[in-house]
Amino acid sequence: MPIESREIRLTSRPQGEPSLDNFSFATVEVRDPNVGEVLVRNVCLSVDPYMRGRMNDAKSYVPPFQIGQPLEGGAIGRVIASQDEKLPLGTYVQSMYGWREAFVAPTANLQIVDTTVAPASAYLGILGVTGLTAWVGLNHIARLKIGETIFVSGGAGAVGNAACQLARIRGCKVIASAGSEEKVSFLREELKVGYAFNYRDGDLLEHLKQAAPDGIHVYFDNTGGPQLEAALSALRNYGRIAMCGGIAGYNTPVPGPRNLMLVIGKRLRVEGYIVSDHFRELPAFLEEAVPALKSGKLINRETVAEGLDAAPAAFLDLFHSGARNIGKMIVKLSD
Amino acid sequence: MPIESREIRLTSRPQGEPSLDNFSFATVEVRDPNVGEVLVRNVCLSVDPYMRGRMNDAKSYVPPFQIGQPLEGGAIGRVIASQDEKLPLGTYVQSMYGWREAFVAPTANLQIVDTTVAPASAYLGILGVTGLTAWVGLNHIARLKIGETIFVSGGAGAVGNAACQLARIRGCKVIASAGSEEKVSFLREELKVGYAFNYRDGDLLEHLKQAAPDGIHVYFDNTGGPQLEAALSALRNYGRIAMCGGIAGYNTPVPGPRNLMLVIGKRLRVEGYIVSDHFRELPAFLEEAVPALKSGKLINRETVAEGLDAAPAAFLDLFHSGARNIGKMIVKLSD
Repeated sequence: MPIESREIRLTSRPQGEPSLDNFSFATVEVRDPNVGEVLVRNVCLSVDPYMRGRMNDAKSYVPPFQIGQPLEGGAIGRVIASQDEKLPLGTYVQSMYGWREAFVAPTANLQIVDTTVAPASAYLGILGVTGLTAWVGLNHIARLKIGETIFVSGGAGAVGNAACQLARIRGCKVIASAGSEEKVSFLREELKVGYAFNYRDGDLLEHLKQAAPDGIHVYFDNTGGPQLEAALSALRNYGRIAMCGGIAGYNTPVPGPRNLMLVIGKRLRVEGYIVSDHFRELPAFLEEAVPALKSGKLINRETVAEGLDAAPAAFLDLFHSGARNIGKMIVKLSD
Repeated sequence: MPIESREIRLTSRPQGEPSLDNFSFATVEVRDPNVGEVLVRNVCLSVDPYMRGRMNDAKSYVPPFQIGQPLEGGAIGRVIASQDEKLPLGTYVQSMYGWREAFVAPTANLQIVDTTVAPASAYLGILGVTGLTAWVGLNHIARLKIGETIFVSGGAGAVGNAACQLARIRGCKVIASAGSEEKVSFLREELKVGYAFNYRDGDLLEHLKQAAPDGIHVYFDNTGGPQLEAALSALRNYGRIAMCGGIAGYNTPVPGPRNLMLVIGKRLRVEGYIVSDHFRELPAFLEEAVPALKSGKLINRETVAEGLDAAPAAFLDLFHSGARNIGKMIVKLSD
């Protein structure tokens, strides 16, 4: 029997910073599943900074969102009607059908998640694409070695906090920045980061010099902008930068680093990546992350917004550095 | 019997663009060689853009030149008195004792060059550190593959023209920029570059789009500045940048590229290097370059300034993009 589902659509493309006006709500009827399909009710969904890029009408590594269409994004849901025995009723599945309450999809588009290991929402955070993003950046891009010193900008954010934790677990010295005192406290007290600072307080390079007088080996970049410039100055010879995100410039362009030529004299390697190129690494990542989460070495910190109505504001909040989200921002829809 | 030698000293550190005032001439007495040493009369010497960095009093990958001391740099000379049978009279040797007419040195500081293969000056150019710099950047940094499209900025300069030729020889499509019509003609007619342009005429990105509608695989950066920014826009996904030099900013800082965040979406790798880390590759490089030079596939183009007195002006000339040097700038001292 068809059910109703509310969904969020992109009404207009943001110019600069997005606002609530760019979004609208609609109610649609979701049909029954055909053979090989299931009907899923979303339990929680993910809002991520990269989605800002998809709101522009520009060629990028993922196609732009279409005006008038429901937005897409990571979500965890529960199967409530099934026409495929591989996914029985009650199965929790991960999909890209976010920003909506329910949907019908072929089972091939869905991955089962094991909620006996961790709560469903963890598969959007520390055990999901977010955690994998951090893990790939450290292992495959920066090639972080045991005992090295790493600086993570946006360290209290979704990917940032995973990067801080994974680096610390492997015995690295971790320096991390964030945009509020609450986040800095989280970095110090919950993540046990070696040196945490508010990037808006004091001189960036002075912070890095104080934290690592001999320089840093790796910079995990979630921000771009002035923090990237300071990191270039703080990097040691043969240092590496994993370029993961540039939230400082997502809404408004920021100037490039004036000291980029240090890449030559210091023989730096600066490398960008997109996690979807590395999805095949998910099992290897989970092999490390699941036991660490179970043993408590790794924590899944999230900030929860309640209900679909809260999703646009939760998304907008990601771009305010002093704002509330610590760890992964989750929008909770149902149990 | 001691001989006299004129030498060039750094009198003051340049602020911004260097000038003749920063240099002075002196005559010194060069003593006889002791056991294990030779006396060398320089035949030709090298002036290179990287020397500008050594004129600053700043920590870098090579120590700064000292005020009142003779400058150093690549040179080829002939042994005119020997206390080591490994280097008999008349042997041509390569050294870092440039900017002077003659010197005494331990033979361990000198490398023999074979002037039956090529004229002495070629060992400062296409068969020397200059050629090796291009080769390392293509092979070890950019990992240029057969058939790829490469853009070389400063393509008519010493390293640039070597990079253009080595890339063309391996069947790559070469795009190159230079700062004068004469240099552009050299690129087109002598180097047989696929697309050459004057970087001061027209829009940089339009040139690159016209030359390579599907984008470029590799950017060999000799300049930094606006050409780096255009190259970032023109690079294909998974493109690479070998950062070799940044002559646009050696005298005066230039802004960083505003589009650096393209490194993420395009999964670019940007890597800097210093040729001295790769001197062990010299034999492998010469194995490729010597036969290519003999067969005429590779040419050694140089611009010659006559006499030690001409050295400071020849050096200054390197920083004027419309200026005369095409290929390697050589200062010739004696036969």
